Amino acid sequence: MSENGFSKEVALGIDVGGTNTKFGLVTPTGEILVKGWMRTDQYPVVEDFVDALHAKIQPVISPFLNGKTLRGIGVGAPNANYYKGTIEDAANLAWRGTIPFAGMITEKFGVPAKITNDANAAALGEMMYGAARGMKDFIMITLGTGVGGGIVSGGNLIYGHDGFAGELGHTIVKPAGRKHWNTGSEGSLEAYASATGIAITAKKMRAEFPESVLNEYPEEEINAKTVHECALRGDATAIEVFRYTGQRLGEALANFVMFSSPEAILLFGGVIQAGDFLLKPTRLHMERNLFPHFRGKVKLIFSELSEADAAILGASALVWEK
Amino acid sequence: MSENGFSKEVALGIDVGGTNTKFGLVTPTGEILVKGWMRTDQYPVVEDFVDALHAKIQPVISPFLNGKTLRGIGVGAPNANYYKGTIEDAANLAWRGTIPFAGMITEKFGVPAKITNDANAAALGEMMYGAARGMKDFIMITLGTGVGGGIVSGGNLIYGHDGFAGELGHTIVKPAGRKHWNTGSEGSLEAYASATGIAITAKKMRAEFPESVLNEYPEEEINAKTVHECALRGDATAIEVFRYTGQRLGEALANFVMFSSPEAILLFGGVIQAGDFLLKPTRLHMERNLFPHFRGKVKLIFSELSEADAAILGASALVWEK
Repeated sequence: MSENGFSKEVALGIDVGGTNTKFGLVTPTGEILVKGWMRTDQYPVVEDFVDALHAKIQPVISPFLNGKTLRGIGVGAPNANYYKGTIEDAANLAWRGTIPFAGMITEKFGVPAKITNDANAAALGEMMYGAARGMKDFIMITLGTGVGGGIVSGGNLIYGHDGFAGELGHTIVKPAGRKHWNTGSEGSLEAYASATGIAITAKKMRAEFPESVLNEYPEEEINAKTVHECALRGDATAIEVFRYTGQRLGEALANFVMFSSPEAILLFGGVIQAGDFLLKPTRLHMERNLFPHFRGKVKLIFSELSEADAAILGASALVWEK
Repeated sequence: MSENGFSKEVALGIDVGGTNTKFGLVTPTGEILVKGWMRTDQYPVVEDFVDALHAKIQPVISPFLNGKTLRGIGVGAPNANYYKGTIEDAANLAWRGTIPFAGMITEKFGVPAKITNDANAAALGEMMYGAARGMKDFIMITLGTGVGGGIVSGGNLIYGHDGFAGELGHTIVKPAGRKHWNTGSEGSLEAYASATGIAITAKKMRAEFPESVLNEYPEEEINAKTVHECALRGDATAIEVFRYTGQRLGEALANFVMFSSPEAILLFGGVIQAGDFLLKPTRLHMERNLFPHFRGKVKLIFSELSEADAAILGASALVWEK
């Protein structure tokens, strides 16, 4: 891999989301030469989607491939299995069953393709181009509609026996706690620390505190963003929503630290817009629950990559992975 | 490494415990050619201990070294740091501060020495000679006076940034739960699932149930072993002690599975003598708290190595580790 910006090799990064699919042509140093997007949800048949994706991408990237080699394609997607190259029963995608997605992309584009889940891709992106540069042991937590995890140990992503390691959003942080709307499990981290979970907490708390300005919003507008607005206005209930969320998140992070002893935990995703309202209680409760040996040693930091580019960079990083 | 029993190379495995230190000369195939032990707790100065250990081991092993090469020494010890070769503030040892133990052993014996914590050594031993043969992803849980963890991912032990990964006994399984007698943390796995924790649970429960045969024992005889005896006699309270312990352990194991997606979890140590009284509720509560994808897929098994030999075999396995 060349260290300058004039590498002869480039990678295509594709981020498959439930609504949109984003892509970009990326150099080994993380420069996005060109990018684009298309709808995902208009293709109920995956073969049609792959055809349309190829038709969309080819003319966009070909002017930039002059004199360069497309070394490979990296794909980030929900419920992706790195080992098998498949997407398996992703709740947010229309395609049911086990989709041999990497193989389909390889065949269509004529270059090797690899696939991993969104959080693992984000971790790779941070390691190559973001806040985790130079780190060999860290944990990536994505806080969005759901909560995802990507674990890097000794410089490598942990995939586990079946490729599904790092399902950190589904770890139980409060036994017999809040029931998850999809999985049915009780007390998982995702039930509290996702944007969805924060909205649930906010709706409960505003009902308890009639004086909260959260009550000025209609039910459907209560989300992590409006709670943040209320917190900025000094609303004690909104601030308490993030404090409670941070407590649950911090307790979970403490357990993750004692598992893999990372140098840092990186937080990523829409929820981190809440800033210190979330970060301070998270750090407090993480430290409080750590085995004394680990206290004060683990960095808790926000991602450095812009959310718009992180998914593409992360997916493209799969191509350069050893 | 030779696959037959006539290898020219052997390893010395040393298990340093709070009371006794055990050692054995081990072939690459896991045959213990000779073994021995000495007291640990009679040496308040670590230099004296290393001198005495050398004086004790040399005459025992030298008849077995005829025509063989001592390839190296592997040491299992509490609070051992694999990266630095140190033992750091081990609560059960007399030696305070950071002890450069591997270096002292290397110097004294004249061969390379490596050190790791007890649970990691046990995991290596199981992978080379026990129930985890052929596995690349598994988690070892040692259930003794304390609770330890050893995590193998992709065929390698996870050491983490500072060498202290796998402190699974200190993960929090019940937020704001039982206070740990040493660390002060609240609700850690060790506070419930260690032999010490089981004795605490039993003392609480027998006070609640005067009809329990547990009440026939004096306070100081309430331990995992006597609770097991009472369970075998059909005592409902004793059975409930293990059910409750299994619930907490199962909840913790579910989180470990979602972290590293192992093929199996191996349980090891004195506490597993309780057999199905512990294993059945553990499995039930592990399955119940798993993300659906993992249910029914992860083996939960007992160690295959005899407890007397496992520590020596595990420590010696460090020598053959790549």
